[in-house]
Amino acid sequence: MNDPAAITAAILVIGDEILSGRTKDKNIGTIAEYCTALGIDLKEVRIVPDEADRIVAAVNALRAAYTYLFTTGGIGPTHDDITADCVASAFGVSIDVDPRARAMLLERHKPEDLNEARLRMARIPAGADLIANPISKAPGFRIGNVFVMAGVPAIMQAMLDAIGPTLATGAKIVSETIEAGTLPEGTYAGRLAEIAKAHEAVSIGSYPSMTQNGFANRIVVRGKDLEAVARVRLEVEALVADLKG
Amino acid sequence: MNDPAAITAAILVIGDEILSGRTKDKNIGTIAEYCTALGIDLKEVRIVPDEADRIVAAVNALRAAYTYLFTTGGIGPTHDDITADCVASAFGVSIDVDPRARAMLLERHKPEDLNEARLRMARIPAGADLIANPISKAPGFRIGNVFVMAGVPAIMQAMLDAIGPTLATGAKIVSETIEAGTLPEGTYAGRLAEIAKAHEAVSIGSYPSMTQNGFANRIVVRGKDLEAVARVRLEVEALVADLKG
Repeated sequence: MNDPAAITAAILVIGDEILSGRTKDKNIGTIAEYCTALGIDLKEVRIVPDEADRIVAAVNALRAAYTYLFTTGGIGPTHDDITADCVASAFGVSIDVDPRARAMLLERHKPEDLNEARLRMARIPAGADLIANPISKAPGFRIGNVFVMAGVPAIMQAMLDAIGPTLATGAKIVSETIEAGTLPEGTYAGRLAEIAKAHEAVSIGSYPSMTQNGFANRIVVRGKDLEAVARVRLEVEALVADLKG
Repeated sequence: MNDPAAITAAILVIGDEILSGRTKDKNIGTIAEYCTALGIDLKEVRIVPDEADRIVAAVNALRAAYTYLFTTGGIGPTHDDITADCVASAFGVSIDVDPRARAMLLERHKPEDLNEARLRMARIPAGADLIANPISKAPGFRIGNVFVMAGVPAIMQAMLDAIGPTLATGAKIVSETIEAGTLPEGTYAGRLAEIAKAHEAVSIGSYPSMTQNGFANRIVVRGKDLEAVARVRLEVEALVADLKG
């Protein structure tokens, strides 16, 4: 299902608190769904600690490999918030307090409260566009194909909504789910593989989950060709019906 | 806080269903907490699609960089389950039906039901040790420093419990949380940075979360030196108390 004209993306989650397990990430799932809805193929996610060399290396690897890179985390006022500096370093540009970002912070803070720590949140790499933050004002930013967003899920979601209309969108991926229920994967896997082989433009996945009554299996048919997906769906439904007898 | 003697780890999550947003990953948080409890530093997570070249490259990059690599997903009976073959390929070893794994599958399936698809789950790279699966019998495996586990969270958890006692453990990371409550990060960030600079053996993070009443901030002090963490905790508590007035 690799399409050279596809719009692709990666996510870089930045933060010790995710790697320690103290905070459970919620942003990956949100961005993943958002990409799918826009026809953008999310191809990779990485989570790295608050370490400058690791962040810079990941930003450069991922921005080179995909159409878009979305980062989350590390843009607050404290010493462990080093994302903006690392992104500037990855792009080889300078970073300083941005008057536009400073003005946004003044919507929330009195001038006399805009101390050095808070002004860290207005440090923006040269050449970047700001991403508005309707909740706590401190903006994210876009530089090149990299979108730098907050880690707090509600703020990240608001920033995602702000950048959504600016993104190139691809052919929308349609997805059809066939419930195999308690039918064991091992009974349909062989014939499902034959269907998959005969229709390489669609991707077929089989996903077990555990319920109180044992396994429940779902088969998902995904692709950008509506007709092909519909055709394969019928074949998979026929297979499941046949085996359920 | 980088320690050359540290036991480190990475996680590789394999699966289109996570990248499409259809399935929300639950394993990263579980493994992250597990590592922290054992004194293992989780340093990186990657999520990649069901594509052989991507899986092989990620396995080789991550197993070379860290003490341990934990993978989840892609070890079922269907055509999209290609993890075992990719790991064999990454290690440059052959892969075939393993008699020990076949015996495990026979605990659940009658011999006449052990078709080609189900036997896929007994395909194990040469030289690997098996990881028991008490739930659905199909085993995971360990080869070198790589632990290959199921994607279904309950099975992954059972496999993690099975391998836990075999892992080298590091100095346990202790973690102390100081509730800053509604005290804004911007008011304490400057002095917190000074404390962090004076105690480089500990890591200090500040984590905002949103509540119905606005932001609530937590400061987390982490490190392997119990005394240093306790000392820094007192300093941070004094800072918060001072600012709360």
